[in-house]
Amino acid sequence: MIRVGIVGTGIGSYHARGYKKCPEVEIKTICDIDVDRAKKCAEEYGAKNTCTDYNEMLKDAEIDAVSVCTPNSLHAPIAIAAFEAGKHVICEKPIATNAKEARAMVAAGKKSGKIFMMAFNNRFRGDTQVLKKCIEAGDLGDIYYAKTGWLRRTGIPRIGTWFTQMKMAGGGPLIDLGVHVLDLTLWLMGDPKPVYVLGSTYMKFGPELAKQQGGVYDVEDLAAAMIKLETGATVMLEASWHSHVERERIYSQLVGSKGGAELDPLRIYTDVNGNNADIQLQYPNVAGHEAEIVHFIECIREKKTPISIGEHGLHIQLILDAIYESAKTGKGVEIS
Amino acid sequence: MIRVGIVGTGIGSYHARGYKKCPEVEIKTICDIDVDRAKKCAEEYGAKNTCTDYNEMLKDAEIDAVSVCTPNSLHAPIAIAAFEAGKHVICEKPIATNAKEARAMVAAGKKSGKIFMMAFNNRFRGDTQVLKKCIEAGDLGDIYYAKTGWLRRTGIPRIGTWFTQMKMAGGGPLIDLGVHVLDLTLWLMGDPKPVYVLGSTYMKFGPELAKQQGGVYDVEDLAAAMIKLETGATVMLEASWHSHVERERIYSQLVGSKGGAELDPLRIYTDVNGNNADIQLQYPNVAGHEAEIVHFIECIREKKTPISIGEHGLHIQLILDAIYESAKTGKGVEIS
Amino acid sequence: MIRVGIVGTGIGSYHARGYKKCPEVEIKTICDIDVDRAKKCAEEYGAKNTCTDYNEMLKDAEIDAVSVCTPNSLHAPIAIAAFEAGKHVICEKPIATNAKEARAMVAAGKKSGKIFMMAFNNRFRGDTQVLKKCIEAGDLGDIYYAKTGWLRRTGIPRIGTWFTQMKMAGGGPLIDLGVHVLDLTLWLMGDPKPVYVLGSTYMKFGPELAKQQGGVYDVEDLAAAMIKLETGATVMLEASWHSHVERERIYSQLVGSKGGAELDPLRIYTDVNGNNADIQLQYPNVAGHEAEIVHFIECIREKKTPISIGEHGLHIQLILDAIYESAKTGKGVEIS
Amino acid sequence: MIRVGIVGTGIGSYHARGYKKCPEVEIKTICDIDVDRAKKCAEEYGAKNTCTDYNEMLKDAEIDAVSVCTPNSLHAPIAIAAFEAGKHVICEKPIATNAKEARAMVAAGKKSGKIFMMAFNNRFRGDTQVLKKCIEAGDLGDIYYAKTGWLRRTGIPRIGTWFTQMKMAGGGPLIDLGVHVLDLTLWLMGDPKPVYVLGSTYMKFGPELAKQQGGVYDVEDLAAAMIKLETGATVMLEASWHSHVERERIYSQLVGSKGGAELDPLRIYTDVNGNNADIQLQYPNVAGHEAEIVHFIECIREKKTPISIGEHGLHIQLILDAIYESAKTGKGVEIS
Amino acid sequence: MIRVGIVGTGIGSYHARGYKKCPEVEIKTICDIDVDRAKKCAEEYGAKNTCTDYNEMLKDAEIDAVSVCTPNSLHAPIAIAAFEAGKHVICEKPIATNAKEARAMVAAGKKSGKIFMMAFNNRFRGDTQVLKKCIEAGDLGDIYYAKTGWLRRTGIPRIGTWFTQMKMAGGGPLIDLGVHVLDLTLWLMGDPKPVYVLGSTYMKFGPELAKQQGGVYDVEDLAAAMIKLETGATVMLEASWHSHVERERIYSQLVGSKGGAELDPLRIYTDVNGNNADIQLQYPNVAGHEAEIVHFIECIREKKTPISIGEHGLHIQLILDAIYESAKTGKGVEIS
Amino acid sequence: MIRVGIVGTGIGSYHARGYKKCPEVEIKTICDIDVDRAKKCAEEYGAKNTCTDYNEMLKDAEIDAVSVCTPNSLHAPIAIAAFEAGKHVICEKPIATNAKEARAMVAAGKKSGKIFMMAFNNRFRGDTQVLKKCIEAGDLGDIYYAKTGWLRRTGIPRIGTWFTQMKMAGGGPLIDLGVHVLDLTLWLMGDPKPVYVLGSTYMKFGPELAKQQGGVYDVEDLAAAMIKLETGATVMLEASWHSHVERERIYSQLVGSKGGAELDPLRIYTDVNGNNADIQLQYPNVAGHEAEIVHFIECIREKKTPISIGEHGLHIQLILDAIYESAKTGKGVEIS
Repeated sequence: MIRVGIVGTGIGSYHARGYKKCPEVEIKTICDIDVDRAKKCAEEYGAKNTCTDYNEMLKDAEIDAVSVCTPNSLHAPIAIAAFEAGKHVICEKPIATNAKEARAMVAAGKKSGKIFMMAFNNRFRGDTQVLKKCIEAGDLGDIYYAKTGWLRRTGIPRIGTWFTQMKMAGGGPLIDLGVHVLDLTLWLMGDPKPVYVLGSTYMKFGPELAKQQGGVYDVEDLAAAMIKLETGATVMLEASWHSHVERERIYSQLVGSKGGAELDPLRIYTDVNGNNADIQLQYPNVAGHEAEIVHFIECIREKKTPISIGEHGLHIQLILDAIYESAKTGKGVEIS
Repeated sequence: MIRVGIVGTGIGSYHARGYKKCPEVEIKTICDIDVDRAKKCAEEYGAKNTCTDYNEMLKDAEIDAVSVCTPNSLHAPIAIAAFEAGKHVICEKPIATNAKEARAMVAAGKKSGKIFMMAFNNRFRGDTQVLKKCIEAGDLGDIYYAKTGWLRRTGIPRIGTWFTQMKMAGGGPLIDLGVHVLDLTLWLMGDPKPVYVLGSTYMKFGPELAKQQGGVYDVEDLAAAMIKLETGATVMLEASWHSHVERERIYSQLVGSKGGAELDPLRIYTDVNGNNADIQLQYPNVAGHEAEIVHFIECIREKKTPISIGEHGLHIQLILDAIYESAKTGKGVEIS
Repeated sequence: MIRVGIVGTGIGSYHARGYKKCPEVEIKTICDIDVDRAKKCAEEYGAKNTCTDYNEMLKDAEIDAVSVCTPNSLHAPIAIAAFEAGKHVICEKPIATNAKEARAMVAAGKKSGKIFMMAFNNRFRGDTQVLKKCIEAGDLGDIYYAKTGWLRRTGIPRIGTWFTQMKMAGGGPLIDLGVHVLDLTLWLMGDPKPVYVLGSTYMKFGPELAKQQGGVYDVEDLAAAMIKLETGATVMLEASWHSHVERERIYSQLVGSKGGAELDPLRIYTDVNGNNADIQLQYPNVAGHEAEIVHFIECIREKKTPISIGEHGLHIQLILDAIYESAKTGKGVEIS
Repeated sequence: MIRVGIVGTGIGSYHARGYKKCPEVEIKTICDIDVDRAKKCAEEYGAKNTCTDYNEMLKDAEIDAVSVCTPNSLHAPIAIAAFEAGKHVICEKPIATNAKEARAMVAAGKKSGKIFMMAFNNRFRGDTQVLKKCIEAGDLGDIYYAKTGWLRRTGIPRIGTWFTQMKMAGGGPLIDLGVHVLDLTLWLMGDPKPVYVLGSTYMKFGPELAKQQGGVYDVEDLAAAMIKLETGATVMLEASWHSHVERERIYSQLVGSKGGAELDPLRIYTDVNGNNADIQLQYPNVAGHEAEIVHFIECIREKKTPISIGEHGLHIQLILDAIYESAKTGKGVEIS
Repeated sequence: MIRVGIVGTGIGSYHARGYKKCPEVEIKTICDIDVDRAKKCAEEYGAKNTCTDYNEMLKDAEIDAVSVCTPNSLHAPIAIAAFEAGKHVICEKPIATNAKEARAMVAAGKKSGKIFMMAFNNRFRGDTQVLKKCIEAGDLGDIYYAKTGWLRRTGIPRIGTWFTQMKMAGGGPLIDLGVHVLDLTLWLMGDPKPVYVLGSTYMKFGPELAKQQGGVYDVEDLAAAMIKLETGATVMLEASWHSHVERERIYSQLVGSKGGAELDPLRIYTDVNGNNADIQLQYPNVAGHEAEIVHFIECIREKKTPISIGEHGLHIQLILDAIYESAKTGKGVEIS
Repeated sequence: MIRVGIVGTGIGSYHARGYKKCPEVEIKTICDIDVDRAKKCAEEYGAKNTCTDYNEMLKDAEIDAVSVCTPNSLHAPIAIAAFEAGKHVICEKPIATNAKEARAMVAAGKKSGKIFMMAFNNRFRGDTQVLKKCIEAGDLGDIYYAKTGWLRRTGIPRIGTWFTQMKMAGGGPLIDLGVHVLDLTLWLMGDPKPVYVLGSTYMKFGPELAKQQGGVYDVEDLAAAMIKLETGATVMLEASWHSHVERERIYSQLVGSKGGAELDPLRIYTDVNGNNADIQLQYPNVAGHEAEIVHFIECIREKKTPISIGEHGLHIQLILDAIYESAKTGKGVEIS
């Protein structure tokens, strides 16, 4: 029997649903600063205990693993404390609000010898798994160019939530939405290290909205960047909560020496016997959030390294930090 | 009566067709190093003379204006000589093979007091003219972010032509295709100056093709860049002759504070009375190549400044140079 | 606390659902001649009492407002009695079975000083509200021509219900369906008064059906009319329960001096900077039936005039009467 | 050998093309007040003579038949003179500029004993012929309701032509476009007589255009009407040169007791064995203009009555007159 | 009151649902070798008793009718025993695993004088009923050629179930899927007797799957046949559980002397007044499984012959037997 | 220089067009029993001579090769005479009107040592060549099942031509249309020998048409067959000139152990890395008729065996003979 605790009940309820799919797993404790939400969640997913202070949960020796699902600024303190308490950790994205925190988390994870998995749920979708298999089979060859983005036409989070406050979130749509598609793209490219970044951020709609509704809005509402990787490949990235575009689009496009691919829907563009060929693959419809939890438990049981680890979260965070810095200075930023 | 001469008969025949639409204009001389092509073109468009040396044409005092339609590396010497001979000049894109040449051309044009128009034909299309009118009416507000590109799935020019040779072309798809969409986008944004560039270029398919067919291929086959403008706006650019993408796409997408726009087809995304609204505009189908020549003649007659001038060509060339340099060093490049 | 009573449980259950959305509103009594239906409805929506005689309900001094949802021929007696009992009234469409009744109702409402709202639910839909806002902003200019209709391919109400009997319904599809689209169209045009009507009605399928099934069918099954308004504008109207057309269509098309519009889906046709432009607006999905009740309660609370009042119902009824008369005589009918 | 003359070379050239399809027919004379146009047309279609005065042509005893293709106001004088000269006449639509002229023409035709055909080309199309055959086979039963129209989004004829001047054209889009669809619809319904009309006309865009371009514009730019026929059936009609609608539409919709039909494309809606059925018919693509001339020649040769005769033109004209009158008075108009 | 028993709870639950729709029908006993499944089914559909031995059920004198819903190899023994016990029988398709069994069943049914209905549910769908009515009205004329099939891209039943074992199932997709479409097609053609068959079967994917998963797979995975009928007509048949085709398709296409038809969706192709016409019929959405049970009960009550009887099942079985034999010998097989 | 003669000018003009594409080829003589057609064809394609008796042409020692493009019944005598005269032969499809003739032709070809190519133009299309390359690369694995057909909704050749007469054509749509798709399918399957056939033919519409128009019609108008090949594979075939189907369809569908394919358009259905994948290939648009002639000339020049030879024509003819025989007897036919 593996016993788990969950901190934060928003995205945390997805984790709970995942744990319920795993045999021989017990959700022991739900922690949330709002006690009512903690209780409601515990009831829904059959958890024994609730608490409002995560330290209390971490003292429980029976708990083997912890899901960190809080606002971004709490990821680092909780995860580090959890590693120190000897727990395995699965942490929601982004890993932290800056790279310094992220490095400390990775270090703490290493020191503890415990599993440090990042909850990059898009890696576990049916289409992305099928595409990854094709890439590993060499179907795209060397992927040297990629474009990825998540643009909303309208979709600024409610003013007053932590999402629109730099101190708690670490950024705006770049760290909220961009992190998803950037991680997915880099994973498909083989998790290469970033080496150079040029970025721009804009704050065009949020402040006006904040004025109307009252509340803090001090993050960007559109970000764009060009990222160079150690492999020589280039990634173009964009993310926005509000922009005058046709409709919300979440995409990732890969261009390789033997073929290209697009998500979503998944399409592969290549040559077959010397003729241009478009390949449409069928794939199972998989709920990424549940599959990632199943994988986490499997890694704990079989002592395997997860397919998304803390270092991957750190790479992403290094890029995000560099984008924000570049946006300020107007110059490119080297990542070492 | 305005008398014109044309150097180069490839794209030059489009110029000839344009001049035929203008009343009181005579195509006096067609110049091409291939005398047969010169004669065939002269016959088709009713030119009196042909020659193989442009200096000969420039000595003809009757000629008022010259179309420069040669391989890129000859743009500078011919245009400068033409200005020195007191001719108005319309020059095909790109302005030159590098910014040094371009600066010399602009200086020569200024010194001569003659008109120096760039043949950016896309500025004269029906859809782009309608969009420009909307932008000038303020319908998009401040355009702070743009994406533009021209990607072909297959379309490397025949190996052996000047297009695939750096010395004569100055680059590959970036200078051949990218220049079109980049100019169109910057014009729609108000011809702002570029200040910083990060670029990447790749040579993945050309060399293999050159090996199979024999001939020189020493330019990129895909290029991508992020460009920062003096206005604070950002432009993402991509161009390719051969890449594993679904199909050829030529696009320009603008994102502004009051609305966004896409080409082509032309769509505007904005708010009407507080609700998201998509606007589809009807526009006349205009042949850009002919319209630009008509505009050139009108500017000569009415002593007006053309809507696309040598300085605009220089801005583009500064960006292209910076992209090639950035691609080599892996770092960003400032443009002064 | 506002206390309401509902007479009639067919469309009355929609009213009940609306009242449940309003805070501080109690559904006190449900009245229906079928006591079982009254009880079932009361149970579903938490009403305290039921009765089968509306006079009994009207005697209840605690009741502030009444929903009149009976067969058409009972609208007038109930509404008038309600006004005399000092209740606010919301009455289902059509206002009555003829204009004489309607005039008496409007007069009774005025005399009572209470609110007399017509339940024209289509005025409260998301798309119609957005269009109304555009019209009020002047986007269509002067609307001089409109077409509206509701045609079913098959859809004669069950023979034996009150719908197919002139005495109880006052007419057929014209008064059942046409009243919806006619009201919506006139409202969008600014509720102008009708001045002249030419109408036709046909009875082609109902009698045969009645013969097969047994029961009374003495109303039209298709009606068409041309209506001239005091503003000089013209409205073309059609309504049918059964006609050999492709499929059921409910539409309203407005043609104005600055733009035109179609429902549904909502599209606006206009010029932008001198070019024809089609505008597609996004709008919220609103349940009209509930929104109208919320509006009714708001008007009672804030002592506001509803956006659809008894007079509007009377205008519609004047038109319907004129159409039926015109269909009989074959001549046009003036409305004074 | 049948010898024909043509007056007017605009639509007249369509007639010429039709005559060239007929064996043993000679186009002897082309008449046009513009002698150059007459000569050009004569050359193209191999006519022997040209003239500028139609009286001259009518004196030619060899000519058997005449095509009247002039501005509307000349239809009556030319056709009457032609009958008096003993010629068969085919007259373009509309028959005249008012019913008084039309009656005189019909009378002259009767007196002469010659054929008087109206050039209603839409009656000769592949789809309309197939539909007519179905209607005659009883597939629609009794057609009791019809809607027809021709609305353009933009398409006011050039200001300065006779089309926009009441004196020469007799009206605007109603007489230019409406006449086509109204005739087609009435023919499909069996050419019944009209008995009552209510009409509206609007002049919203033409005057402004005339002010900008200079020239006379004194006709409507949108017309709408409701027409009652002797059979009890009703027709709704609309016509416009300029209106804020989605796009140009030319349609005719028939609703009958056994089935309905739409043009174009042609669809029939009916019941088959008690189930709703949509029938899509295939039909030959026929050029109506040529087919009508072939029919005219055939009627002359075989002494048959044409399927579109002067009386049909008169019926249409009676309706148009009544619409214009009704639009002025605001009241319905009886047609006797 | 009619009392029924059901043997087998897989497809048997569909029967139960049907019986629940019938007034005055009681499901008395559910029989299944798996007692838990029997009990669960009994509870869900309100059956009084359960048992695991069908003989026990048949001894119950109160039971009037039996649904046979077991694996194919048990159809014959159960149905024959039921007839001997004096029960009406409705038997799932296919009737048996070979024609010998089928003949014995038909004989037993005849001898008992009881109703022997085959559960060919596709005969009871809305579209097939409408088409049958058209065929009986003569709309297709003489149907001389038909094609029918059910091909899956992937869909081999789980290895280990009785479906993939020849002894229990009598065959593979031919007897599982083909039987549905073949019966439907023959019924539409008027249930003619088959006279000659050529067939092929292939086993390309099942054995490999069985090797991977463990278990028996000894049936075909694709079958095709050409069938000649006593009327001179020809039917082409195909069925597959796994084949490299675009997607699953279930179709029946009929070609007659007056018209053709396709399922599904239902379309009729014919001539109307001498022109090719496509007819699209509307039809009610009917759940075939429930409708067949309602029909069975009605036949029992009204002592009518069902529209699908044991003989029809035998005809199908004769064809299936012949296909399997022909596939073995490579020659055609006569059916007597 | 290769000199060719053409017998028959219908399909013969396609051959002429092909020869004109070949350098160093001269069309020397055009032979047709209609001397005017021979002359017209000779003029169009620049042939020196014409004649009406093919024996005359065959005596011309300068002629190296002959195109046989006559009615089917003349294929054998002309081809045999040509071989005896030492000419290479390209013969239109079908090879002959029966297998006996076909065998004699193949024997004569072998004896002469000359090239005997069948003009199966579909083998030379862009899509079929690309598919063949994929099949040869093993992409479909073992093709065990195929369906092919050419069905027209209406398209019986004009009564009175040789096409509808058994004596001259050898059959109806089976030999006219079916031969195309059958050859294409067998070629894609590797030209295997047929071993067993069951066929049906129907004559439902031709006789009635012949009665109306006058003339002989004694061939089938629909044929269907099932063909077993030496490889164990099965082919389903259908062909019709007139049948109540949706529209004309020409198709070939292959089902193999590793993938399936459809024409046209060309699609491949297979698995990629264990997931179902649809592959859409791009291919050049090739005119098959011209490409086959280019191939014929190439084979003559390079002494290669053509990709479609007399034996392939014989295989097809054996199948056609067997289908006609089977249709008569109602039984299967073995091919030895």
